[in-house]
Amino acid sequence: MPELHELSAAEAARLIRGRELSPVDLVESLLHRIDALEPRLKAWVYLDGDAALADAAQKAAQLDGGAVGPLHGVPLGLKDIYYTAGIPTTACSKVYAGFVPDYDATTVALLKRAGAIVLGKTVTTEFACLDPSPTVNPWNPAHTPGGSSSGSAVAVAARMCPAALGSQTVGSVLRPASYNGVVGFKPTYGRVSCHGVIPVSWNLDTIGWMARTVEDAALLLQVMAGPDPQDPGTSRQPVPDYLATLQSPELPRVGFLRRFFYEQADAETRRNVDDVLERLSRAGARVEEVTLPDSIDSAFEDQRVIMAVEAASFHQATFERQPEDYQPLLREMLRRGLGTGAVSYSRALERRRRFTAEMEQVAEKTDILLTPSTPTPALPDLTNTGNTIFQGPWTSCGLPAITIPSGLAASGLPLGIQLVAAPFREARLLAAARWCEAALDVHLFPPVDAPVDA
Amino acid sequence: MPELHELSAAEAARLIRGRELSPVDLVESLLHRIDALEPRLKAWVYLDGDAALADAAQKAAQLDGGAVGPLHGVPLGLKDIYYTAGIPTTACSKVYAGFVPDYDATTVALLKRAGAIVLGKTVTTEFACLDPSPTVNPWNPAHTPGGSSSGSAVAVAARMCPAALGSQTVGSVLRPASYNGVVGFKPTYGRVSCHGVIPVSWNLDTIGWMARTVEDAALLLQVMAGPDPQDPGTSRQPVPDYLATLQSPELPRVGFLRRFFYEQADAETRRNVDDVLERLSRAGARVEEVTLPDSIDSAFEDQRVIMAVEAASFHQATFERQPEDYQPLLREMLRRGLGTGAVSYSRALERRRRFTAEMEQVAEKTDILLTPSTPTPALPDLTNTGNTIFQGPWTSCGLPAITIPSGLAASGLPLGIQLVAAPFREARLLAAARWCEAALDVHLFPPVDAPVDA
Repeated sequence: MPELHELSAAEAARLIRGRELSPVDLVESLLHRIDALEPRLKAWVYLDGDAALADAAQKAAQLDGGAVGPLHGVPLGLKDIYYTAGIPTTACSKVYAGFVPDYDATTVALLKRAGAIVLGKTVTTEFACLDPSPTVNPWNPAHTPGGSSSGSAVAVAARMCPAALGSQTVGSVLRPASYNGVVGFKPTYGRVSCHGVIPVSWNLDTIGWMARTVEDAALLLQVMAGPDPQDPGTSRQPVPDYLATLQSPELPRVGFLRRFFYEQADAETRRNVDDVLERLSRAGARVEEVTLPDSIDSAFEDQRVIMAVEAASFHQATFERQPEDYQPLLREMLRRGLGTGAVSYSRALERRRRFTAEMEQVAEKTDILLTPSTPTPALPDLTNTGNTIFQGPWTSCGLPAITIPSGLAASGLPLGIQLVAAPFREARLLAAARWCEAALDVHLFPPVDAPVDA
Repeated sequence: MPELHELSAAEAARLIRGRELSPVDLVESLLHRIDALEPRLKAWVYLDGDAALADAAQKAAQLDGGAVGPLHGVPLGLKDIYYTAGIPTTACSKVYAGFVPDYDATTVALLKRAGAIVLGKTVTTEFACLDPSPTVNPWNPAHTPGGSSSGSAVAVAARMCPAALGSQTVGSVLRPASYNGVVGFKPTYGRVSCHGVIPVSWNLDTIGWMARTVEDAALLLQVMAGPDPQDPGTSRQPVPDYLATLQSPELPRVGFLRRFFYEQADAETRRNVDDVLERLSRAGARVEEVTLPDSIDSAFEDQRVIMAVEAASFHQATFERQPEDYQPLLREMLRRGLGTGAVSYSRALERRRRFTAEMEQVAEKTDILLTPSTPTPALPDLTNTGNTIFQGPWTSCGLPAITIPSGLAASGLPLGIQLVAAPFREARLLAAARWCEAALDVHLFPPVDAPVDA
């Protein structure tokens, strides 16, 4: 058996169901690892080891009672914007300091029902926006860990938990996942409920998560996908069996996007993509170039307008009362949102509708689209959380997307490739990603060099 | 055979296909009727009898060539906001005076492909908005004909054409249809393309039409339903066989809405609804009361904000250059839209999303929902086009709706009932409406008293 903190969520769940692993041992292993690494990495904003151990003991006892859920006994991290009943939820902001919700976000309730253990709350940039968080990139502390789901990405990369929830309004799941060398996934807009998640922007916010395998990404989707009467943005599209599809992946058709994505990547990232495409082709994938519509050109700026206005709509009352409690980048965005006219915002939404329809048509031409996950690996610049332009368009048009590790840059920082599919085609996306994961066979371990029982 | 101008579109098409009726005779009959009534009713803004006759002659000749479309040789009216290649399209506004498009709206192209003859363009209120048009109610010239699709409703009611396209942003199809004693129908938002239609509000605009039978409403839907790459708002939901469903209607379950709709109707309208429900029950329908969500209360005001902002977005450049070319009610609305902040508009859209999700759930509880079509019959007030509150909520949440005549008020003006179904359930809606039409057996003829060959 590998070291317990190396287990994926699916592996751990299988071992627990088979009585080969005690949830208590698993939680203890992760808590030891957190003890050793957290002072340096600052991935967590709330931890209660005793509560997690007590929950694990209860989960162990429940194994005598018969059938258990697909995540029974598996400890997970939750970005600190997810409402957790009885556990502080602060969005890492002064405004929410001391706030303890009295109910769980729909996603948290679903994870718990599936047997998951809440290990703790992970650091987010303030309100899941742009001001950098204290979290440290485990590959190199001089480089940004990305954001906004910085704690979730780092916790999973550093093996403090097998998977953790994040959220993506522009590039907040796949970018930090790629910067830290892990898998990051966001489903189609509307596939998973946002109820009980502190919002940024109601037209853009998408639940997502970090894991270390595509299988784990699929497992979490299986648990959380589906309509929620509490979230009017969720879709009533039927939920397929994602895990079954993973078992028999077909050779994928891969659409390569040169415009915008490949063009704006640095030379090293482009070389990595060239190499990835060659390896996938050799393994049997059919790679063809796919053309992007002109509407891509205004997508990023339109998304910026939409995000600022909708964040301002949520924060207006608090922000006008206590602007000094907001950090500078967020403050600037809220001011901009409050000053925007309805006509400008409507035009941004209208252009986004056309862009979405055109991108859906692009995605339907093939099984998956492929781009580099980020224009560069994580840069040695801690004043911001990195460039979001390769995620933004997919969040804006709502298509499902996943990043998987694809190598290391000369700087020693991870590189990733981003795969995208047509709306509600997560089964196809995950099966293709699983196939690419096996074909590339890239496994990254950050050089945190921490003994498990430090 | 009935008088030619009394034929429905479906009847006329059947007779033409069977060589029992010449399209030329049909067009001549309608042109005679228009000659006699138009000076009083002012339903048309553009007519070209010679062109219609020439087209009819060509359609007659094509009958020798084999298969023809489902509207072959049937003359229709088009609200003057539909782009018609080579035919003026002015939205009855000074701003578009003299404008001749070089292409057809997608809907117009589809009607033509199905064999329809463009008889002319019908009067709209200016830009399909609120300022009354010159069109006269054929039931009583002192009463409003409604709007904005005033010409289409009056042309169909006065037997100048069997059917005519309108459009509904708040209450612009079903309200004038009901005021004039005809059938008015709008499909689900996104079911029919808006490409090539001068817009009011991109989130609300819905193509609709007037006819004198439910069968004709279904026939036009069959011809026009479906996705349009040119309109990113159209849905890719499959298009069923609406006409087949009409043939075997089942006894419908009818959900009666007391809140808002019945409550805000006048006593005579309420008595008519009571009577309708009794007649439908006697005929075998299962009537049950259905509860509306609280979100109905802000729906109308939110729609008002959305419409003003989106109309302002379309008109801004022209309006700022030549405000005096706009009529007073539209001018006021555009000023209001231009002055609205993005946050207010975003909140209206966000509330509308919740309202939509909740109304879809209400509609799914039964086959059709039933309300009076309007709070009162057309009132003797020519300063406005009547009260839109019974249409607005259904346009805002995008559900398909139809009005059918249900009697006459003491004033001699028509009354109607409005039926609504779940999204993309037009087949169910039309079959139930066809059943209600037969059960109620109300046929209304306005007292225009014009000899056909005047």
